[in-house]
Amino acid sequence: MQIGLLGLGTVGTGVVELLENNKDVIAKRINDHINVKKVLVKDLNKKRTPLVEGKITDKFEDILNDDNISVIVEVMGGEEPALSYIKEALKRGKHVVTANKEVIAKHGRELFELSAENDVNLFFEASVAGGIPIIKPMKECLSANKIVKIMGILNGTTNYILSQMTEQEKSFDEALKEAQLEGYAESDPTDDIKGYDAARKLAILSSIAFNTRITSDQVYTEGIDSVSKADIQYAREMGQVIKLIALGKKHEDSVEVSVTPVLLPKDHPLASVSGSFNAIMAEGNAVGPVMFYGLGAGKMPTASAVVADIMETVRNNNCSKFNCTCFDNLEVMDPGQACSSFYIRLLVVDKPGVLAKIAGAFSQYQISLSKVFQKNTINGTAEIVIVTYDVPFENLKRALDQMKDYDEVEEISTVIRVEGEQN
Amino acid sequence: MQIGLLGLGTVGTGVVELLENNKDVIAKRINDHINVKKVLVKDLNKKRTPLVEGKITDKFEDILNDDNISVIVEVMGGEEPALSYIKEALKRGKHVVTANKEVIAKHGRELFELSAENDVNLFFEASVAGGIPIIKPMKECLSANKIVKIMGILNGTTNYILSQMTEQEKSFDEALKEAQLEGYAESDPTDDIKGYDAARKLAILSSIAFNTRITSDQVYTEGIDSVSKADIQYAREMGQVIKLIALGKKHEDSVEVSVTPVLLPKDHPLASVSGSFNAIMAEGNAVGPVMFYGLGAGKMPTASAVVADIMETVRNNNCSKFNCTCFDNLEVMDPGQACSSFYIRLLVVDKPGVLAKIAGAFSQYQISLSKVFQKNTINGTAEIVIVTYDVPFENLKRALDQMKDYDEVEEISTVIRVEGEQN
Repeated sequence: MQIGLLGLGTVGTGVVELLENNKDVIAKRINDHINVKKVLVKDLNKKRTPLVEGKITDKFEDILNDDNISVIVEVMGGEEPALSYIKEALKRGKHVVTANKEVIAKHGRELFELSAENDVNLFFEASVAGGIPIIKPMKECLSANKIVKIMGILNGTTNYILSQMTEQEKSFDEALKEAQLEGYAESDPTDDIKGYDAARKLAILSSIAFNTRITSDQVYTEGIDSVSKADIQYAREMGQVIKLIALGKKHEDSVEVSVTPVLLPKDHPLASVSGSFNAIMAEGNAVGPVMFYGLGAGKMPTASAVVADIMETVRNNNCSKFNCTCFDNLEVMDPGQACSSFYIRLLVVDKPGVLAKIAGAFSQYQISLSKVFQKNTINGTAEIVIVTYDVPFENLKRALDQMKDYDEVEEISTVIRVEGEQN
Repeated sequence: MQIGLLGLGTVGTGVVELLENNKDVIAKRINDHINVKKVLVKDLNKKRTPLVEGKITDKFEDILNDDNISVIVEVMGGEEPALSYIKEALKRGKHVVTANKEVIAKHGRELFELSAENDVNLFFEASVAGGIPIIKPMKECLSANKIVKIMGILNGTTNYILSQMTEQEKSFDEALKEAQLEGYAESDPTDDIKGYDAARKLAILSSIAFNTRITSDQVYTEGIDSVSKADIQYAREMGQVIKLIALGKKHEDSVEVSVTPVLLPKDHPLASVSGSFNAIMAEGNAVGPVMFYGLGAGKMPTASAVVADIMETVRNNNCSKFNCTCFDNLEVMDPGQACSSFYIRLLVVDKPGVLAKIAGAFSQYQISLSKVFQKNTINGTAEIVIVTYDVPFENLKRALDQMKDYDEVEEISTVIRVEGEQN
C-alpha cells in the first residue's frame, strides 16, 4: 500500500518513524506493507530524517497525480491549504487520514459528503485526544447506545496549568510560564487558554456522539484565565477540584455543548486526570459511563492514532475480515522467574535477634529489603511487615520456606506483590 | 439482517431489549435492520419477554438450518454445549458473536482457525470487561503499537469486596456476605474469589496484546481470600491500596501473565477504580499508557458490547465504508438556557445587611443557594463564596448584572460551573 504524506513536522516525522520502527507487527497485523512513497514539505532544503530521502517534494500535484498512491495522510495542520488538499484527494478517489481538528470541526459535513460521493474513507482519530482511542470506540463499540452525555478533559496545556495551580499552589501566571518552559504551552497560548482548542475537539466528539453536525463556533466557550489561586483553594475546602471540562449533553431535541472551567468532586473519575493527560467520559443508555484515558498530544501518541487509521484504511480497502492475530508463538514465563517487589507480613516470637535472623534469610537469597517495620506485640508475639525490592518469585519462596523452619517464626501470614518503585 | 440467539438468560434478554429500545439509531447507524428470528432456550414453558413471542425453540438445528440466519449470537455461557454450537455455526458459514470468555480463553485457536477457513467473523467483545470497549480498541486503535504491558481490574466481585474492606473497614467474610446480598457475588463465589474469572479474561486480552495464543491455565493465579484487614491497613499506612490485578508483560521472547493481589500507590490510575467497576491499562511503545474504564458486567452493559459486535458483523458483511453518521439535525441549545450549579466569589463592603441584599437578588431570579460563606475580611472588604443549586445560566447572569450596581459589591471575581449534586 503506497501512501502520500502531507507535512513533515513533529507528527509527520512521528508517523514516518513509527511506520519504520514497528513495521514488522504492522505488516503482520494487516497482511500488507505500508510504504511512504512521497512527502510534501514547504522547504526542500531543510534537513530531514534519512527515512524520507528521495521522497520529498514541494508540489502537492506530485502526490495527487501519482496513481499508485491510494491513501493521503494530512498532518500539516491549519485550515488552508490542508482543507483544499483533502478535498482534492477525496475527489480523486483517494482515501484520506487526517489529524486536523480545525478542518474536521469546521468543514466536516462537506468533507464527509465528498468521501461518501467518492466511496473512500476519511479517518480522523488523531484529531481528538491524540493517541487515546475515542472516535472509533464511539462510532463502533458504543454504537448500540444512545449517548446521553460526554464529558472530557481535551486540552493538555490547560490541564497541566490547573494541576500546577492545584498541586504546587502556583498562580495562573506562574503555572503558564512553567508550562511554556516545559514545552506544554505555545509561546502564544491563546487557543489553549481560551478553550478554543478544546471546543474544536468537542465539536467533533459531540457530532459523533449525538449524530448531528456541530461546529466549533456553536460551542459556548470560557477559558481558564479567570481561575485564581483563591478559587482553587475554596474548591479544595469543598472537597472539589477545578478542571476545564468539555461537556456535551443530549436534551429532548437539542444538544448542549460547552467548554468551561468546572468544579468536580475529588472522587469524580475525571478529577484525578492530572498534568498533560486527557480523558473522555461517555455515558450510554445501555453501557452506562465509560472512560478513555491517555496522552492527548505529542509526537508518538498522535502518530499512533494516525498509523492505526492508515492500517484501518488498508483493511477496508482489502475488505479483509478480522481473524486471529496470534501470529507469534511466545513462551509463557515460569512464574518463579517473574520479578516483583513483595509485601510480607509475618508473626514472630518477640525476642532479641529474631529480626536479624529473618533479614539473614532474605539476604541469603539475594533479596534486599526496602521497608521493615515491627508492630503490635501481643503477649510475646510481634507482627513484622516487610517490603522487598524486585526479586524473582522463586527466590522469595525459598527464603520463606527456610523461615518456616525457624522456631521464632510462628506464621507467615501474607505475601502480596507491590507495583511501583520502592525507595 | 436475521440473527439467531442462543440463550435467553440475563444477557440474552438484555440483547433482545436493547435491539428493541434503540432500534432506530441502530438501523440508521448500519443502514440495515437487525431482526432476532429465532431464540434457543432450554425450557419452552418458562415465561419469556413478549419480544420473543413465536420465536423460541429448544432445538439448535432449527437455527443452524435456517439459511436466512447469517449471524448466530451465543450468550448461553459455559463450555458445553456452547463450544459445539459455535463450531457448527462457523462450519455452516455463519458469523458468530459470543460473550463466552470460557470458550474463547480455552478454545480460541481452534475457533479462529474455523472462522478463517469459512471466511466468517467471530467477535467476542463482551467476553472481557462487559461493556467496556477493549478488544476492538486493542486490535484496531492500538494496532500501530507494540504493546509492552497490560494491567487490569477485570473482576467486579473481587473489586467490590476489596473496596468494601478498604472503605468500610470490613473483614473479607463480612464484605463477601454483603457482596452476595447485593447480588455482586454468586452463592458459590469460587471462580471470582480465586481469580479464575479474571485469569480467563487476561488470557484473551494478552493473546491480543502480544499476538500469541495464551490459555487461562497458563496464567499464574492467586485469589483475594488471603488478604486480611491488617494488610489493607498496613497498605494504607504506606499510601497504597490492594487490588486484584491481572498483569500481562512482554519480555524479550516470553510473556509474563498473572492474576494476583497487588499493592498499588494511591495515585495510580487503577487505584481509584472502586466497587464493581473494571478498568484496563495498556501500554504501547508509541501511545504510552492508555486506560479504559467502565462497568465490567451486568445485563445492559454486556448487551451493549454484544449488539455492537452484531452491528459490526452487519457492516463487514455489507463491506460498507464508514462515512458521516450525522443523520440527525438537532438544535444547539442556547447557553443561557443550559442549567447548572454555579460557584460565585465576590468582594463586598463588610457591613450589616450586605449578605441579605445579595441573597435577595438571587431569590428575585429564582436562584436557590446551597452554600454561602464569608471570609477574609481585609480592611472593610469581605470575600463571599456562594454555590447555587441548578439554575439556567441566563437567570444567574441577570442576578449578577443587578448586583454589579450595588454600591456594597466591589467586584464579582469568579463564576465557575459545578458538577455533581449540591446538598
